[in-house]
Amino acid sequence: MAIVVTTVERTPPGLVAALSEFGVATLHEAQGRRGLLASCLRPIYRPIRAAGTAVTCEIAPGDNWMLHVAVEQCRPGDLLVAAPPSPCEDGHFGELLATSLAARGVRGLVIESGVRDVAALTTMPFPVWSKAISARGTVKETLGNVNTPLVCAGALVRPGDVIVGDDDGVVVVRREEAEQVLSQAREREAAERAKRAQLAAGDLGLDIYRMRERLEAKGLRYVPRPDPEE
Amino acid sequence: MAIVVTTVERTPPGLVAALSEFGVATLHEAQGRRGLLASCLRPIYRPIRAAGTAVTCEIAPGDNWMLHVAVEQCRPGDLLVAAPPSPCEDGHFGELLATSLAARGVRGLVIESGVRDVAALTTMPFPVWSKAISARGTVKETLGNVNTPLVCAGALVRPGDVIVGDDDGVVVVRREEAEQVLSQAREREAAERAKRAQLAAGDLGLDIYRMRERLEAKGLRYVPRPDPEE
Amino acid sequence: MAIVVTTVERTPPGLVAALSEFGVATLHEAQGRRGLLASCLRPIYRPIRAAGTAVTCEIAPGDNWMLHVAVEQCRPGDLLVAAPPSPCEDGHFGELLATSLAARGVRGLVIESGVRDVAALTTMPFPVWSKAISARGTVKETLGNVNTPLVCAGALVRPGDVIVGDDDGVVVVRREEAEQVLSQAREREAAERAKRAQLAAGDLGLDIYRMRERLEAKGLRYVPRPDPEE
Amino acid sequence: MAIVVTTVERTPPGLVAALSEFGVATLHEAQGRRGLLASCLRPIYRPIRAAGTAVTCEIAPGDNWMLHVAVEQCRPGDLLVAAPPSPCEDGHFGELLATSLAARGVRGLVIESGVRDVAALTTMPFPVWSKAISARGTVKETLGNVNTPLVCAGALVRPGDVIVGDDDGVVVVRREEAEQVLSQAREREAAERAKRAQLAAGDLGLDIYRMRERLEAKGLRYVPRPDPEE
Amino acid sequence: MAIVVTTVERTPPGLVAALSEFGVATLHEAQGRRGLLASCLRPIYRPIRAAGTAVTCEIAPGDNWMLHVAVEQCRPGDLLVAAPPSPCEDGHFGELLATSLAARGVRGLVIESGVRDVAALTTMPFPVWSKAISARGTVKETLGNVNTPLVCAGALVRPGDVIVGDDDGVVVVRREEAEQVLSQAREREAAERAKRAQLAAGDLGLDIYRMRERLEAKGLRYVPRPDPEE
Amino acid sequence: MAIVVTTVERTPPGLVAALSEFGVATLHEAQGRRGLLASCLRPIYRPIRAAGTAVTCEIAPGDNWMLHVAVEQCRPGDLLVAAPPSPCEDGHFGELLATSLAARGVRGLVIESGVRDVAALTTMPFPVWSKAISARGTVKETLGNVNTPLVCAGALVRPGDVIVGDDDGVVVVRREEAEQVLSQAREREAAERAKRAQLAAGDLGLDIYRMRERLEAKGLRYVPRPDPEE
Repeated sequence: MAIVVTTVERTPPGLVAALSEFGVATLHEAQGRRGLLASCLRPIYRPIRAAGTAVTCEIAPGDNWMLHVAVEQCRPGDLLVAAPPSPCEDGHFGELLATSLAARGVRGLVIESGVRDVAALTTMPFPVWSKAISARGTVKETLGNVNTPLVCAGALVRPGDVIVGDDDGVVVVRREEAEQVLSQAREREAAERAKRAQLAAGDLGLDIYRMRERLEAKGLRYVPRPDPEE
Repeated sequence: MAIVVTTVERTPPGLVAALSEFGVATLHEAQGRRGLLASCLRPIYRPIRAAGTAVTCEIAPGDNWMLHVAVEQCRPGDLLVAAPPSPCEDGHFGELLATSLAARGVRGLVIESGVRDVAALTTMPFPVWSKAISARGTVKETLGNVNTPLVCAGALVRPGDVIVGDDDGVVVVRREEAEQVLSQAREREAAERAKRAQLAAGDLGLDIYRMRERLEAKGLRYVPRPDPEE
Repeated sequence: MAIVVTTVERTPPGLVAALSEFGVATLHEAQGRRGLLASCLRPIYRPIRAAGTAVTCEIAPGDNWMLHVAVEQCRPGDLLVAAPPSPCEDGHFGELLATSLAARGVRGLVIESGVRDVAALTTMPFPVWSKAISARGTVKETLGNVNTPLVCAGALVRPGDVIVGDDDGVVVVRREEAEQVLSQAREREAAERAKRAQLAAGDLGLDIYRMRERLEAKGLRYVPRPDPEE
Repeated sequence: MAIVVTTVERTPPGLVAALSEFGVATLHEAQGRRGLLASCLRPIYRPIRAAGTAVTCEIAPGDNWMLHVAVEQCRPGDLLVAAPPSPCEDGHFGELLATSLAARGVRGLVIESGVRDVAALTTMPFPVWSKAISARGTVKETLGNVNTPLVCAGALVRPGDVIVGDDDGVVVVRREEAEQVLSQAREREAAERAKRAQLAAGDLGLDIYRMRERLEAKGLRYVPRPDPEE
Repeated sequence: MAIVVTTVERTPPGLVAALSEFGVATLHEAQGRRGLLASCLRPIYRPIRAAGTAVTCEIAPGDNWMLHVAVEQCRPGDLLVAAPPSPCEDGHFGELLATSLAARGVRGLVIESGVRDVAALTTMPFPVWSKAISARGTVKETLGNVNTPLVCAGALVRPGDVIVGDDDGVVVVRREEAEQVLSQAREREAAERAKRAQLAAGDLGLDIYRMRERLEAKGLRYVPRPDPEE
Repeated sequence: MAIVVTTVERTPPGLVAALSEFGVATLHEAQGRRGLLASCLRPIYRPIRAAGTAVTCEIAPGDNWMLHVAVEQCRPGDLLVAAPPSPCEDGHFGELLATSLAARGVRGLVIESGVRDVAALTTMPFPVWSKAISARGTVKETLGNVNTPLVCAGALVRPGDVIVGDDDGVVVVRREEAEQVLSQAREREAAERAKRAQLAAGDLGLDIYRMRERLEAKGLRYVPRPDPEE
């Protein structure tokens, strides 16, 4: 009825550490604007930052049983990713599960449902991105797969992929693309650094990115004041 | 047309104080997972915590007149609970009403609508859980009942019941069940404390809660890697 | 196809500075409860406060090209207001554009879409009110008008109008009404100060605002306990 | 853990039949604008109309077990009312359960979650008001109370109360108030009939309801054209 | 406090009639993709179609008093447009007001709130686009402006402008642009007719619109199967 | 930058035809409750039914260019599935594209955004499931992949998979599982037919599914009336 995959090919820790230096927006851009989880996932505190290798977990609405199963599959450096098949916002996760995950060296949780005990999670601190905060308890009755490919907040996450989260949200980097994404993120950040300096000095994006000609070609007109009919 | 009930049987202050030591999630569990208000109610700042005896107030969309009526019914140790008959998010409550409630020893506000002046409320601090933050002003034209049973954010609140709020949300404990809920919350917290220590030491929930056998009976299988067709 | 209006009649800086002393709720009340932007616009950090003269910018869903065009039209003391024609929540704005705006003396951004790099924006700090936080990147392909009247979050904003934002939200004050709104805001705040003192001293709004007679006329009844049938 | 109350004091069938002649809006008005369920509950087809005595059922998110329990408690003339403790939209109900309810003479279903097989339900026809339409299946694991007071879509429903639904939504009339509400609904409808004739003949509500004086007293002014500054 | 503007410069009836021949999508395109009201406004039945000159009405949440005032300002060929300052979904409008409007030759209603009696409105039929269907009654206490510019569902509507609604939604055409929009709509529809014939015959949009070259220039590649790493 | 995969391994037409005999709910159950698209996708008319092999298309918010590219990849028996990377509800699709798809023998459209010309689509009829109805036009500027795996409304859809839609929603059946799902759907429907007859005859699900013992074991109690404290 449901399976737990016990062998996961994880992205190497060094690669995860290197990727974790970059923001979610940069990584999302560096991989061609793919892999971003929907913005309904919000961090439970800010500033926040975490990165790890995905352990995936299917949960049922109102039921957090499989999170307990998933904990056992987690290793140091992992980050747990959980999603239900239909919308819900129960408190699937709280201080006890966070304590267990932290004891195993897990870096955080991304869950397309609700969490509770957020005051305690904030104090620990244990990084969580969730769809809701809810004290609502859950039952332990329904099976689901652990460590199979999972759609979480609209993005496909496969076990062993890299998950990075920050104040902006959460991004998944595919294991086999991690090296290339890292190199592109470095290039992108270097380019941004130069541009940031120019912009801070008062240069305009219109000039730095050479936009004026294309804007004019598309038909942009500069007028002192609008036609009264406009 | 509308009534104000002036005599309310309040939960004894000592009981409220004792209950206020527990989190919302714990109290909700301790009373059989009942009494939680919907998670659309969010605290205006965090960390936050308040507990009191409910004074209930029906408000109309765009109209906060009855809040003024309700203030007079509040005593030290009360917590005001307000809800409209249809969805709205106007700024029904702000610094002036908070000043008035604070002067009367009121512990906080739970409102299924919007509030304003949140910077001032945060500074006071005056604890508020609301559905929205909105500067929109309201009129004073429509009557509503005060201190009659009220559905607020999906939960039935009766005058004199205990209201406890924290970072996770808001729960109502019925007056006549308060003593029993307190005793169950104590038991629950003691049990959780023990489990937290075990989990922090690396024990697994799977073992602590003896889940393995039931998982297997339901059909959970552990496999090294998924069948390619799965 | 699209125009950029280069001449904007701005509200005088002194007037903006004077208005910026007041909260959004007060200004909204002082101008007859008009001009409030919808409460879906939330500040990216709190406490927050900014005021400036509006430069308006039409953006397309998933496209932030016109923001670059709008930057050039901004002068010190301006505040950029951007809105799309249909709902979206992409990350239209981030650290680079904020750096550019800050370099030009711009006071903040109000945008009916998403922003990213919120950790950096918070550190700067650069005040932003947005509908969402999203790392999602945007393209640069679609024209839109700059400095024409714009509906943002349900409110009509004209170039040169005053925009004030705080923890409660965002309000627009029309240029030609700014002086009068200022004087009414001063009156209102003076009146509120007096009332706040009375309320803090324990006086009731029911008495201060002389509500009792009107409540009775409308049919409010005080009863010791509700009729069991009620 | 959970109870099924087997003895319900039902509103007499004749009273239900008499109330069923009136629209939801009229009944809601006739009982002082109380008892309306939230407008998130929509009929699965239109036109639609049903009335019955409430059998209440607590369901869990993703779990429809208790609906099977509730069916047995239903008698001819009943209408099943179901609600979960936290938001969900799974397909808790479909053709099989509808067949079972129809076989028992049940008049319809009001459910604060999702339903499926709506094509079949429409053909039967079996009247349903739900929050969503979803093919998502549910499990049978979690207990809940049957025939205890239940908050459904923001309204308190007690077993035996009258439920009436039409194209506008759903209203609950308390058993002990049913007779009085019926008499007020009759009065109201008679009054409306007269007014409808007047309005159809071209008379204005302003005159029929004598609003002009009050509007003027509140400060309404008629002007040929707005002040340009307005 | 509030004004009713009694003199409205209406778009000529012949022009309205001519515009009413076109769909909302076509008119929205014909005027440069402006003027569309937000898609949260849905028709209460389908198919539906109406066009008229706007009479505008500010309503308060939970309060429909000004609709009665607005009725008197309506003339044959008008269409009433109503919007509140903050989100609400009460039943601001029902059969009685529709009877009154129909008696005055009014073509329909666009309202950014709720309506009731939709079975009766459908039978009349009286065309309505609304944000919600709700039986919730409203009070008559709060003033608002009639026939002043109004933002409804995100679009600016001025009295006398043309409103056209169909199954797709609602569009406003500015009075002074009506003639030009009509001529552009005619051109557009003629062009669409030709294209529809080509597409029905199996020609591809890629060829009809000559997109292939531009797609290639932007970097679109055709591959028999994806790179396994992609 | 973006690719169009021109070779798709499609589920055989006979298999699609056989699957199309079953409802979405049945197919979703038959494959272990997987593959359902989120219930935010609604049919534009009812009753509705369509089945086909998926051609997938990434669209950008406010941009429908890639739909034109995707049309060329469609063959008779296909069904187009389109989704954007971030939430939007523009009118990405209308009568012209539907005409083109119909001319190519395409069975319908599933799109996680908006569509327009729904009156015409209903008349054709051309089956569409969408997130919104909006007349808002789109641009043609942004590339996206065609016929690569796509997450649409929370479900992973791969080119050549079977898509079935009805009044309840939309389900995807993986190509390599289609045969097995078909056989399970047949079994399930046969079982349901038998049960439907039993239920129509008045038998209870409690007995047919032998639930009584398990309910009792879990702690369900039948009581004539609730304890007053409950």
